[in-house]
Amino acid sequence: MISRRECLGGLLALAWQGQSAIRDQSAVRNPPSAIPRIDPQTLRQRIETLSTYGRRPGGTFADGVSRTAYSDADVEGRRYVMGLMKSTGLQPRIDPAGNIFARRDGSLPRLAPILFGSHIDSVPNGGNFDGDLGSLSALGVLEALAAADVRTRHPLEMVVWAHEESFAFGRGLACSRIVAGDVRPADMDDVWNGMKRADAIRKIGGNPERILDARRPKGSHHCYIELHIEQGGNLERAAIPVGVVEGIVAIDRYEAVITGVANHAGTTPIPERHDALLAAAHLTVAVRDAAARRPGRQVATVGQIEVTPNSPNVIPGRAVLSVELRDLSPHTLVEMMDDIRARAREIERTTGTTIAFRMMAQVTPAAATPEVKAAIERASASLDLRTTRLPSGAGHDAQSMAQLGPMGMIFVPSVGGISHSPKELTHWDDCANGADVLLRTVLEMDRVD
Amino acid sequence: MISRRECLGGLLALAWQGQSAIRDQSAVRNPPSAIPRIDPQTLRQRIETLSTYGRRPGGTFADGVSRTAYSDADVEGRRYVMGLMKSTGLQPRIDPAGNIFARRDGSLPRLAPILFGSHIDSVPNGGNFDGDLGSLSALGVLEALAAADVRTRHPLEMVVWAHEESFAFGRGLACSRIVAGDVRPADMDDVWNGMKRADAIRKIGGNPERILDARRPKGSHHCYIELHIEQGGNLERAAIPVGVVEGIVAIDRYEAVITGVANHAGTTPIPERHDALLAAAHLTVAVRDAAARRPGRQVATVGQIEVTPNSPNVIPGRAVLSVELRDLSPHTLVEMMDDIRARAREIERTTGTTIAFRMMAQVTPAAATPEVKAAIERASASLDLRTTRLPSGAGHDAQSMAQLGPMGMIFVPSVGGISHSPKELTHWDDCANGADVLLRTVLEMDRVD
Repeated sequence: MISRRECLGGLLALAWQGQSAIRDQSAVRNPPSAIPRIDPQTLRQRIETLSTYGRRPGGTFADGVSRTAYSDADVEGRRYVMGLMKSTGLQPRIDPAGNIFARRDGSLPRLAPILFGSHIDSVPNGGNFDGDLGSLSALGVLEALAAADVRTRHPLEMVVWAHEESFAFGRGLACSRIVAGDVRPADMDDVWNGMKRADAIRKIGGNPERILDARRPKGSHHCYIELHIEQGGNLERAAIPVGVVEGIVAIDRYEAVITGVANHAGTTPIPERHDALLAAAHLTVAVRDAAARRPGRQVATVGQIEVTPNSPNVIPGRAVLSVELRDLSPHTLVEMMDDIRARAREIERTTGTTIAFRMMAQVTPAAATPEVKAAIERASASLDLRTTRLPSGAGHDAQSMAQLGPMGMIFVPSVGGISHSPKELTHWDDCANGADVLLRTVLEMDRVD
Repeated sequence: MISRRECLGGLLALAWQGQSAIRDQSAVRNPPSAIPRIDPQTLRQRIETLSTYGRRPGGTFADGVSRTAYSDADVEGRRYVMGLMKSTGLQPRIDPAGNIFARRDGSLPRLAPILFGSHIDSVPNGGNFDGDLGSLSALGVLEALAAADVRTRHPLEMVVWAHEESFAFGRGLACSRIVAGDVRPADMDDVWNGMKRADAIRKIGGNPERILDARRPKGSHHCYIELHIEQGGNLERAAIPVGVVEGIVAIDRYEAVITGVANHAGTTPIPERHDALLAAAHLTVAVRDAAARRPGRQVATVGQIEVTPNSPNVIPGRAVLSVELRDLSPHTLVEMMDDIRARAREIERTTGTTIAFRMMAQVTPAAATPEVKAAIERASASLDLRTTRLPSGAGHDAQSMAQLGPMGMIFVPSVGGISHSPKELTHWDDCANGADVLLRTVLEMDRVD
């Protein structure tokens, strides 16, 4: 891996050295000073066009997109992106899990490819930058290098992951997780919204019968790099154009089941109630407090609640809440949950209810690789772009890829920190900066075997 | 009306006088000491049989009942009760609104009838006493008087109201409200669960084309008396077998719409959230506190909540809550709501949300008539049953009838104060006591014109 930091001059020289290794000097069209840039107009135009797949009828770019995985809009959006790939001379290939790959040869076939990309599926009522920016910038990298006739040492491979938002199917199995090996043939039998997972994967061109062949071994790529919008407000607030991700947070997700006694809202005196929703209210405040009362960037969220019988004139007898905790440190998650459990014991006493917790999901943290982080920082410096390091509170495909080899992520600012919303916005200048940093990070990582 | 309280001796003498007015002394079989009693075994057996209409397959009495208005089970339950009425010599008549009436002549045709009864429809997953006890006891009263050959001065009229639980259709129009005049022909066009109200009323034997004919004028009955389970725990706790209802509480029902900003639960730091569910939690506690912090029997309930988007990994952007306030005094409701609004202003500030209230329904209180309350107390005393006065936190058909004339309600204890639940239970002794108090209250009210 990279053993020392290089200045911009070193980067340029080495990029030059990379391409010169495979071509006759007479064929060289790019002097060292001319590392290609991603064309910002083309990038913008493609993001805007992609946004029409899954846009509501009569809507505009500002209305966001519902291009959920395995929907017709997803299929059409993928077709659009594969068309772009073909038009720039790439040969897109769909793996058995439905992920789209395309490869550009390097000068040294013995080297593992540098993999980079993102996804284009969205949450329902999502925005136009989450995933799309990283996917179309990856295409821009291959296109710019081809246009400038720059040949890297490593093969380059772009990827458009399928089903990153993983809201479909019980296990929420993002297709990058399948590549990382987290799959059993029985998963193909899962049914969600009346659709079998095998049929869903077939719908996007995958091959559920060969699903295990989608797995890649450790070391099958040199490193994985992903450009993504921050989805939080740290970069915008600090007015820093590039974030270098330290790692992707751990997530512990629980279900809290609160049992009270349903009773008539008119005839049951206040002191004699066993109100499950009142207990849920106290617990919701306790979850927030568990995150707020300690220093650090940890978060805790009650995002979902179901109340029974949920009628204005009946005291709720049962409430089920989601409790989600996130931090880079799994230890912090345990501490927060200890706080919440202690408060729950008090709430049980004061409300006459019982509260039971069940762990529903646990995501281990994924640290970014120091060498990739340093490469992102050098790439940014070469573009005179300031950087800061920060955790990713959101999950990403990079998390899966961290299981197979070195990983790094580039963040660009989200206006207002808003994401998973039609209001999601990243300024076009920031998009272009991110794409250029991605390209230069690829070249930085290309310098070492 | 009754101008003075009478002792038990007075009651018996006057009951005797009532029947003696129309029959030859030689026909008298009941000396004053033998006011008839309701047969407790028959009452119990009928409540148990009625509970099978709407019971889940394979269930027992303890599984409660789902005999919701206009359901097939409701139609069958009504057919069963009308069969009982016919077998005791009554001629049940269904009014255009679907209410079942049956009349027994009195000795003085010029007098208005004494009306008494209840309902037999239930909430989903309800119990076997709410409504059923009052309806079958009303039948027991007519049956016992007929068996004992006691003729009252006033005509007697029993009623089984339709759709008392009024959970169906937008306006929740209980059929006793139609009788009280709260109906427009256009209400018949309401659609609920794919069923038109006109068809629903037709299904139970009503006549929607003549719905306005179901209205009765003020003074069309001498008084209305209803026996009902308390549905609260006051009588059981105090070990008092009979409650004399002071009145039926006023209800103000609001919808609180909380608007925050939906955002990613992983990437949005705690201080920057605009969490609608967190605000809803604080508001739920505030609603409870508004009732709990003042002396009195007022109650306040958040029974219903809908959160958007309601996903574990998204900070809720919107929450809609029901806020229901009940008390005999409408002034107390206003005071509680003032408290809640003041707290909402603070919650808006601390959570970065907005909270808007909209009044959804307002039920005016219905005071019981002093003369009927006194009659219930005398009737209870004649049976050596202690009484206490208490408000009804639940709505009843008596509320509608209070608009047409004098009204009173008899409560019997609910075990554990549980109602609207399969666990709803009133001991058989208490049922029998309630039925006998009803009969004697009818005789008490019969003494005056």
